[in-house]
Amino acid sequence: MPNDLIPDWLAHRASVLPAHPAVVAGDLTLTYGELNTRVLGLAGALQQAGIRPGDRVAVLCTNSLELVEAAHAVPRAGATLVLLNCRLTPDELAFQLRDAGVRLLLCHEATRTAAIEAAAIAGCESPLTLPLPPATCVQPVDRHALDDAHSIIYTSGTTGRPKGAVLTFGNFAASAAGSAFNLGVTPADQWLACMPLFHVGGLSIVLRSAIYGTTMVLHPGFDEREVVRALHESPISHISVVPTMLQRLLDADERPSPPALRVVLVGGGPVTPELLDRALARGFPVIQTYGLTEAASQVATLSPGDARAHVGSAGKPLVTTSLRIDAPAGEPGEILVSGPTITPGYFRNPEATAAAIQDGWLHTGDVGRLDDDGFLYVLDRRDDLIVSGGENVYPAEVEAALLAFPSVLEAAVFGVADPRWGQVVAAAVVWSGPTEGTDLEAFLRGRLAGYKVPRLIRRVDSLPRTASGKIQRRLVREQFE
Amino acid sequence: MPNDLIPDWLAHRASVLPAHPAVVAGDLTLTYGELNTRVLGLAGALQQAGIRPGDRVAVLCTNSLELVEAAHAVPRAGATLVLLNCRLTPDELAFQLRDAGVRLLLCHEATRTAAIEAAAIAGCESPLTLPLPPATCVQPVDRHALDDAHSIIYTSGTTGRPKGAVLTFGNFAASAAGSAFNLGVTPADQWLACMPLFHVGGLSIVLRSAIYGTTMVLHPGFDEREVVRALHESPISHISVVPTMLQRLLDADERPSPPALRVVLVGGGPVTPELLDRALARGFPVIQTYGLTEAASQVATLSPGDARAHVGSAGKPLVTTSLRIDAPAGEPGEILVSGPTITPGYFRNPEATAAAIQDGWLHTGDVGRLDDDGFLYVLDRRDDLIVSGGENVYPAEVEAALLAFPSVLEAAVFGVADPRWGQVVAAAVVWSGPTEGTDLEAFLRGRLAGYKVPRLIRRVDSLPRTASGKIQRRLVREQFE
Repeated sequence: MPNDLIPDWLAHRASVLPAHPAVVAGDLTLTYGELNTRVLGLAGALQQAGIRPGDRVAVLCTNSLELVEAAHAVPRAGATLVLLNCRLTPDELAFQLRDAGVRLLLCHEATRTAAIEAAAIAGCESPLTLPLPPATCVQPVDRHALDDAHSIIYTSGTTGRPKGAVLTFGNFAASAAGSAFNLGVTPADQWLACMPLFHVGGLSIVLRSAIYGTTMVLHPGFDEREVVRALHESPISHISVVPTMLQRLLDADERPSPPALRVVLVGGGPVTPELLDRALARGFPVIQTYGLTEAASQVATLSPGDARAHVGSAGKPLVTTSLRIDAPAGEPGEILVSGPTITPGYFRNPEATAAAIQDGWLHTGDVGRLDDDGFLYVLDRRDDLIVSGGENVYPAEVEAALLAFPSVLEAAVFGVADPRWGQVVAAAVVWSGPTEGTDLEAFLRGRLAGYKVPRLIRRVDSLPRTASGKIQRRLVREQFE
Repeated sequence: MPNDLIPDWLAHRASVLPAHPAVVAGDLTLTYGELNTRVLGLAGALQQAGIRPGDRVAVLCTNSLELVEAAHAVPRAGATLVLLNCRLTPDELAFQLRDAGVRLLLCHEATRTAAIEAAAIAGCESPLTLPLPPATCVQPVDRHALDDAHSIIYTSGTTGRPKGAVLTFGNFAASAAGSAFNLGVTPADQWLACMPLFHVGGLSIVLRSAIYGTTMVLHPGFDEREVVRALHESPISHISVVPTMLQRLLDADERPSPPALRVVLVGGGPVTPELLDRALARGFPVIQTYGLTEAASQVATLSPGDARAHVGSAGKPLVTTSLRIDAPAGEPGEILVSGPTITPGYFRNPEATAAAIQDGWLHTGDVGRLDDDGFLYVLDRRDDLIVSGGENVYPAEVEAALLAFPSVLEAAVFGVADPRWGQVVAAAVVWSGPTEGTDLEAFLRGRLAGYKVPRLIRRVDSLPRTASGKIQRRLVREQFE
């Protein structure tokens, strides 16, 4: 197994199912044969731009065919894909470009300005704007080792310094298998992607579709009216959303779930009982899931049949994944996961890797509990993670930005419940001197992606700390509320 | 990946789908929960019989719940399963018992006599007859390394000495994924097994059902009337057969294909155009396949839509498998296969492994050709392999038995076409002295499984040989015909 090679998924599908629709984007449908031709042209263009096997190529694109093509073309040229979050600031992007040792940055028209700025800060070459004129690909890589890195996706954490989680071809293959053996797969399946493709959940749809030989329906973003229309006008079988999107979908349209829709995969936190009831009453097959970047997306899922009896649960693990709680049976503890979907580690970061993966178990940092029937309840997201509208925000990263402001002496960042976004970011700050005449928000907007900037900032005299001096964010949040 | 552990498939399904039907055998249906309880009881009994992790446990059973339970229980006790072909003679069985270093032989009532005799010849302990009284399993193995051996299945070859192909958990997992991504999988699937479970095609149904969480419908053997009845009375979605079985199914019943039947997987050689036409005209979804033990079953498949345009083809490889022909493009040559479904090698036989697997490519010994569209045509089975009624017969093995008879000086064994069995075994023999008064057939029946004993034996004066002295079996066959 370790050195086993598998066929390039897209190349395989272009050979076996050349006329089957691969991607539907608006009025345009590309078959596997057509997508493969485009991808080979882009892989050739990457070679002409000097990309060689082993290089890293970053992509900064909103949801678009360009991003789908790049996700297939970069591995075809033998390089590793570095997926960048379009919401990040140029400084944040530059950190990832440098950290991943990126040789080439690809963008498209919508992200060009940010890409140029980020590349300049990072000291990279000027980015290339997709689409590139196609070129002949010399010896395209048609087989990949299971252990080779397909992608690097950055996640933050306690330290505030983002880490590049390496995901291998084997990780994605195992994840696709685990998902299929849980949700089923048929050749007629169509998976609608309206969440960002630059997150693992979106990229997984791109890769899974090619692995399965099924169709991906690509939306530029989440527009509830467009999604409702697509669900009712085409035989969409799967859609991935976060709870706030599910709510907006239900608000936007009164009809029952369309008959072809088999899976509404809801990630990014539990669905409230009220929302679940509304969705199930209208026949929506809500499958809640717990996943993380380091596990190539899904870890556990809760089927609609179990949803009412286990409200708040994320269900049971996929057949590819082992899960245990680092605590005595039935008690809450850190969620540990293991198996072939788990990242081999963080890019060029052996310390973070050693801290996260011990004896083959990934320490998620999330706190959970298994009930007597083996259902998982996620009690606290990792490291006080805030999930706002499906985006992960790590308090430590926002606190570091706050502390960089001259008048801020201490800061504690946490999430507060929000009916629309699930959570929004809030901060308690110990301030030196007067706040008048300072513009903390403008300062933060220059350093942090918009969704990370606290909506609520409260001035306090001091912050509660543990004996060892660590800020007790949970206590701050309770005082705040 | 290499050291990755995956959950025991049955243990996982018993946790996630305890009430889902796992096996239907006649009037008895076992849920995953029930099957798991039985399997744990058997694994405990194996422990009590002294089985420890790393041991090898052989199973000699006809199609039965006992065999299904043993296939799950042996790995659960940490041991490797050695699957024995019930049609072999005690001598043939004893060779495999010794070669695999088997610690314990399991049989059931129907195979008890043969098992006792084989164990005595091999010098093993007396076999245990299933079912055994259940015992508590101490620390059942609930996770397996992908690289660990799940099974050893013997195949013969040029030398006449059978070799034990090791199949890992990873091999079966990859095969299940490749098959699912090609044929589709849904939770309601029911796969009917009427071929011997002791071959890789049958064992794959047992394991795949647990991997997928679907249902296996077990028949004690192939009885066309029983199979037709099952297809029409229950929602069977998949069935695996060889061409002669397909013919008998069509002969036995006039009705069109039942609506739930999605896949009729036909292995063991190409379907004739006449048989294909008959099957397709009645709506049977015939999917022809080329596979081999060393690849954990399927390598390539031909879909019904491509069947008429590519008569005689075995189709295209699964997404998990790479296939190439060891010859210039378009010309016939040896079929090489590679990928995570391929055996790591033959048990304790590094020479045979090194001869068969080179640079990660398994040399199948079969000769094939790829057409311009990438469809595989298998032209000659490996090493003049004879396939008779779905059983593989290796000429070298039969020739060795013939040469052991005192009056036989030279022998050439080959297959001749047969309307019912596909092929039957034939031999050309150079004889010393008179044939009267000798009973070659009785001699052979004592040494060879019945299906290997030549139906036709012709006495010849000499056999055509190559310059290097090798018998030219193909030339003999042509002279014979």
